[in-house]
Amino acid sequence: MSFSPLTNQLIDALQCLPGVGPKSAQRMALHLLERDRDSALVLADVLRAAAEQVGHCRLCRTLTENEECDICQQSRRDRSLICVLETPADVLAVEQAGGYRGLYFVLLGHLSPIDGIGPEDLGIDRLLERAADPAVKEVILATNPTVEGEATAYYLREHLKPCAVRVSRIAHGVPLGGELEYVDGSTLAHAFSGRTEVVDE
Amino acid sequence: MSFSPLTNQLIDALQCLPGVGPKSAQRMALHLLERDRDSALVLADVLRAAAEQVGHCRLCRTLTENEECDICQQSRRDRSLICVLETPADVLAVEQAGGYRGLYFVLLGHLSPIDGIGPEDLGIDRLLERAADPAVKEVILATNPTVEGEATAYYLREHLKPCAVRVSRIAHGVPLGGELEYVDGSTLAHAFSGRTEVVDE
Repeated sequence: MSFSPLTNQLIDALQCLPGVGPKSAQRMALHLLERDRDSALVLADVLRAAAEQVGHCRLCRTLTENEECDICQQSRRDRSLICVLETPADVLAVEQAGGYRGLYFVLLGHLSPIDGIGPEDLGIDRLLERAADPAVKEVILATNPTVEGEATAYYLREHLKPCAVRVSRIAHGVPLGGELEYVDGSTLAHAFSGRTEVVDE
Repeated sequence: MSFSPLTNQLIDALQCLPGVGPKSAQRMALHLLERDRDSALVLADVLRAAAEQVGHCRLCRTLTENEECDICQQSRRDRSLICVLETPADVLAVEQAGGYRGLYFVLLGHLSPIDGIGPEDLGIDRLLERAADPAVKEVILATNPTVEGEATAYYLREHLKPCAVRVSRIAHGVPLGGELEYVDGSTLAHAFSGRTEVVDE
């Protein structure tokens, strides 16, 4: 015995959400059906609209329903800088940190031969085209400090060599507010090898 | 700065799901848009279909898209027993435990004057009608052993008195497989006050 066929279908469909297993999907389905059908209908409409209409920015590949995203359209951005990130969430994080005023390029993933994700899936051709523009002075590689992120950064560094741009990688080191005692060994090793000279002002 | 308007709407809409806050909603929205649009469309369709078509069983009020649910339709059920439960998930739990072969009545909640939930919201009239049927011999109150569940069971006991049915409450006591040392005091007190005599066989 289980729930009615449509309820079971809903429980199954909810499991496409990351971090949602059978038990939470059941809880979600029953909550919506018992108490919140209006929200369920709103969610259904928004899901359909977003899945059908949200596309990728022509320039930076981030998610947008317009041809170009808000950031690429802003005239006050420094168009000589391109920061390469893995996901739209990373764009939000960098924007919220403040300080960076250049443009972005979103790979929507990282190189992962095991999962069949190659350079063409990450739009790297388009990045190289953009980097070849003489207006671009620097490409900042800000992929994640993971094995795949580092491999992607390495691949990009090699392929950006022919372009007349400076290529940089974000610094790895001890996070602010952390205590050395609790920082992992490889981060600490990076912090030592990437040390900068203290200069008297 | 944040995401595109439709992406933001999706992140907001996903927060109608229980246990989903802004961070998990963002993760879910980006996962669906970056990697799994087909599932998003399926989920949208199923959500709409379920919210529009799943109704309540005419007899027991559980969720079903038919007039009567599967259990109420089964001819092999013992129609002299009605077990009163709070939610469709409780029906599943009792069915999976096995052993019970009677019918159900699902309150879809419990009495909670603070939230404005009264007897009419729980379909108690319909339960009393069913209990008045001479074919019904016993009503088993299996609301949760919480303050609201107990209050609901007490209310039902009082209102079932005029009906010519036996009214029973599921036993409270030490759960099987538990250790006395870790059982809370009120459960232990219930286990003592509800002790049954050991009879030689």
